[in-house]
Amino acid sequence: MGKTDPDGPPHKKQSMVLVPRDTPGLEIVRHLPVFGYQDQHGHSELRFTDVRVPTSNILSGEGDGFMIAQARLGPGRIHHCMRAIGMAERALALMVKRANERVAFGKPLAEQGTVRADIARSRIEIDQARLLVLKTADLIDKYGAKGARTEIAAIKVSAPEVCLAVIDRAIQLHGGAGVSDDTPLAEFYAHARTLRIVDGPDAVHIRSVAREELARERPYAG
Amino acid sequence: MGKTDPDGPPHKKQSMVLVPRDTPGLEIVRHLPVFGYQDQHGHSELRFTDVRVPTSNILSGEGDGFMIAQARLGPGRIHHCMRAIGMAERALALMVKRANERVAFGKPLAEQGTVRADIARSRIEIDQARLLVLKTADLIDKYGAKGARTEIAAIKVSAPEVCLAVIDRAIQLHGGAGVSDDTPLAEFYAHARTLRIVDGPDAVHIRSVAREELARERPYAG
Amino acid sequence: MGKTDPDGPPHKKQSMVLVPRDTPGLEIVRHLPVFGYQDQHGHSELRFTDVRVPTSNILSGEGDGFMIAQARLGPGRIHHCMRAIGMAERALALMVKRANERVAFGKPLAEQGTVRADIARSRIEIDQARLLVLKTADLIDKYGAKGARTEIAAIKVSAPEVCLAVIDRAIQLHGGAGVSDDTPLAEFYAHARTLRIVDGPDAVHIRSVAREELARERPYAG
Amino acid sequence: MGKTDPDGPPHKKQSMVLVPRDTPGLEIVRHLPVFGYQDQHGHSELRFTDVRVPTSNILSGEGDGFMIAQARLGPGRIHHCMRAIGMAERALALMVKRANERVAFGKPLAEQGTVRADIARSRIEIDQARLLVLKTADLIDKYGAKGARTEIAAIKVSAPEVCLAVIDRAIQLHGGAGVSDDTPLAEFYAHARTLRIVDGPDAVHIRSVAREELARERPYAG
Repeated sequence: MGKTDPDGPPHKKQSMVLVPRDTPGLEIVRHLPVFGYQDQHGHSELRFTDVRVPTSNILSGEGDGFMIAQARLGPGRIHHCMRAIGMAERALALMVKRANERVAFGKPLAEQGTVRADIARSRIEIDQARLLVLKTADLIDKYGAKGARTEIAAIKVSAPEVCLAVIDRAIQLHGGAGVSDDTPLAEFYAHARTLRIVDGPDAVHIRSVAREELARERPYAG
Repeated sequence: MGKTDPDGPPHKKQSMVLVPRDTPGLEIVRHLPVFGYQDQHGHSELRFTDVRVPTSNILSGEGDGFMIAQARLGPGRIHHCMRAIGMAERALALMVKRANERVAFGKPLAEQGTVRADIARSRIEIDQARLLVLKTADLIDKYGAKGARTEIAAIKVSAPEVCLAVIDRAIQLHGGAGVSDDTPLAEFYAHARTLRIVDGPDAVHIRSVAREELARERPYAG
Repeated sequence: MGKTDPDGPPHKKQSMVLVPRDTPGLEIVRHLPVFGYQDQHGHSELRFTDVRVPTSNILSGEGDGFMIAQARLGPGRIHHCMRAIGMAERALALMVKRANERVAFGKPLAEQGTVRADIARSRIEIDQARLLVLKTADLIDKYGAKGARTEIAAIKVSAPEVCLAVIDRAIQLHGGAGVSDDTPLAEFYAHARTLRIVDGPDAVHIRSVAREELARERPYAG
Repeated sequence: MGKTDPDGPPHKKQSMVLVPRDTPGLEIVRHLPVFGYQDQHGHSELRFTDVRVPTSNILSGEGDGFMIAQARLGPGRIHHCMRAIGMAERALALMVKRANERVAFGKPLAEQGTVRADIARSRIEIDQARLLVLKTADLIDKYGAKGARTEIAAIKVSAPEVCLAVIDRAIQLHGGAGVSDDTPLAEFYAHARTLRIVDGPDAVHIRSVAREELARERPYAG
């Protein structure tokens, strides 16, 4: 994606162009690791030197880059949230398994009050976040991404946060196995941590939810 | 409610008896304030000295006290949660109003990032808690309070917590007006604070959610 | 305190004047309750109608109001923090007492992991906040309130926060006794809650700490 | 370290033995990564097959393993805390640098209220944790690790927690640069996360602080 009409109207400046990986002049400068994981997402730094492709490689049409990105962002964001819920469920399942199996101080971890509290909190938080994901998906179905804009912003903040909290508790319960590759938890965490950044950092979505809330009609505030 | 058959089976020991307020021997020892509010809930300490009422004052039947209490507790708990959501919405509405009207450091509070973040957080938390209340109510409708047991426990923890967090932010935004009686916020807070205690303290409900979660079939934990 | 020279230089506009309570024209419009407590702090709304006092009632001198207020604010703020630490210690002591005495589910609360965690957290938080109060007091002794400005702002945020968290845990452990007047906890809470507002709300002090931090020389950030 | 006298008294069962890396029979099964970092700490899984070393390789004396470990643990733990404070300071310095340099929505991040709040919170938390580290070090100097036992446990919980919170905020402010290797922050996080596990997980230290607190003489609790 790049600017093809820098002086055009704001939403028509950018275009998206397909560039096959073996095009002359395209160079992969480096892959970007995430918390030490080298190949997790395939995000890379690229350098383009005198790269040429046919005009038919333009996606949709010249100047449609912004529009394509926007069209993808709403569904893309809720996708991230669904995966976050899934990771959180998996982490909770591992936590429960560990709690039932691991004995410390003479009894299974599952009999310790703080462990039980961590498990209960995780269940409550996941269930709430899932319901907001489901409601948002339903709004997208009914009114499109635009009609679900505020809910998408809300869940984009909440789902990764819940996911990280649950994974972190699961890591703690697994000790060394939680931070190493003996469980998938550390890699889950690394991936979930990027979700607070990709497709707009938390701050941007919080700003959107606030703007909507501040403008809402509210006859009962009197 | 009192023990009428101390040696009976666990669920049949208690009975509920209606005692009109002017019955001889019934004395109101004191009203219990909540924070400094004297008359908020009508909970009082009572003393019964040789009080006599007709046997027809027994509710349902002798030994049915526990059953009646249980039958009421599920619906009673979600009722508290609904009110908690309502109080939270009202507090958020007041917060938004205040943020739009009050000017500090040369601009409305609504233009300060931390205020906007508080407002957005409140909206997200309320919406999530409300969805869990609605889901729980739906489960009660379909399967009865027993079938919604875990969700009732979950929302009984979550709704008061969210409610208190939102009210507390609203108080802070109102300054002195928030802690005095210039707004309803301080009294809201006092009332909402009791919700973490009445009908079973948080710890009991967290315990229930954990027990359920630890026992759940989970083929995908592998 | 009131404006005696509205067009004067910013720091010389205000004066402080002693007005005896029985001065003709001085009317106490109402006392301001705090969370339902009517007489806790003696803050009141006053109305002055043609009140006259001798010029000798001016504190320090005409236009010295701002200076007096500033001189008092630093020491006043740390005073609040000291009291907050004291309240937190008292609340923790009550929590420990309760945990050791109260039996639920067949054992003293003190043997429940979550209760122990609450107690440990409270001790850790109090000790950290106390150390910052002590350091700040030491800085005031050595360099005056001005030299301890940032630390005063920091502890003014932190001490009330810790105090409220500890009292809230203590309330929860006491159940109904925690929110009523069977313990001093609810009144402690009400008082501690005002500390996040009086002498500058949290937001103002957070702003000061941030400003200082953003301006700090920092050769090692490279 | 291994059991040399399984039937001996509890504190004399273990011995520590030096085994040079090239001793026949010693095999490095695998290195344990931390998050995706492969070589961060040199912790490895080892296999010993008929390994023989001279008895002079026993550290201190036979059965002294537990004693040596204990002697090292107190100082070792505060060491971790000191490094945690150092990492937190470095992360805060990077956060401030980024906030001053990076422009978004038309102004430096440093002018956004939520960013300033994150910076202020970080300073306050670091300063409090540092003071507790310093107090603990002073107690160790004066009374030995045993006399500082509770404070060591307290700071072992608090310092990593503060460190992680500060690094996490710094990561968020750096966006993609925070989770990749463009900054040291992700690797800091991975390392700091192990500190809640090594030398006893949080739960163990919280238990110690609670035990001490529950047993403390407290004449003023009345």
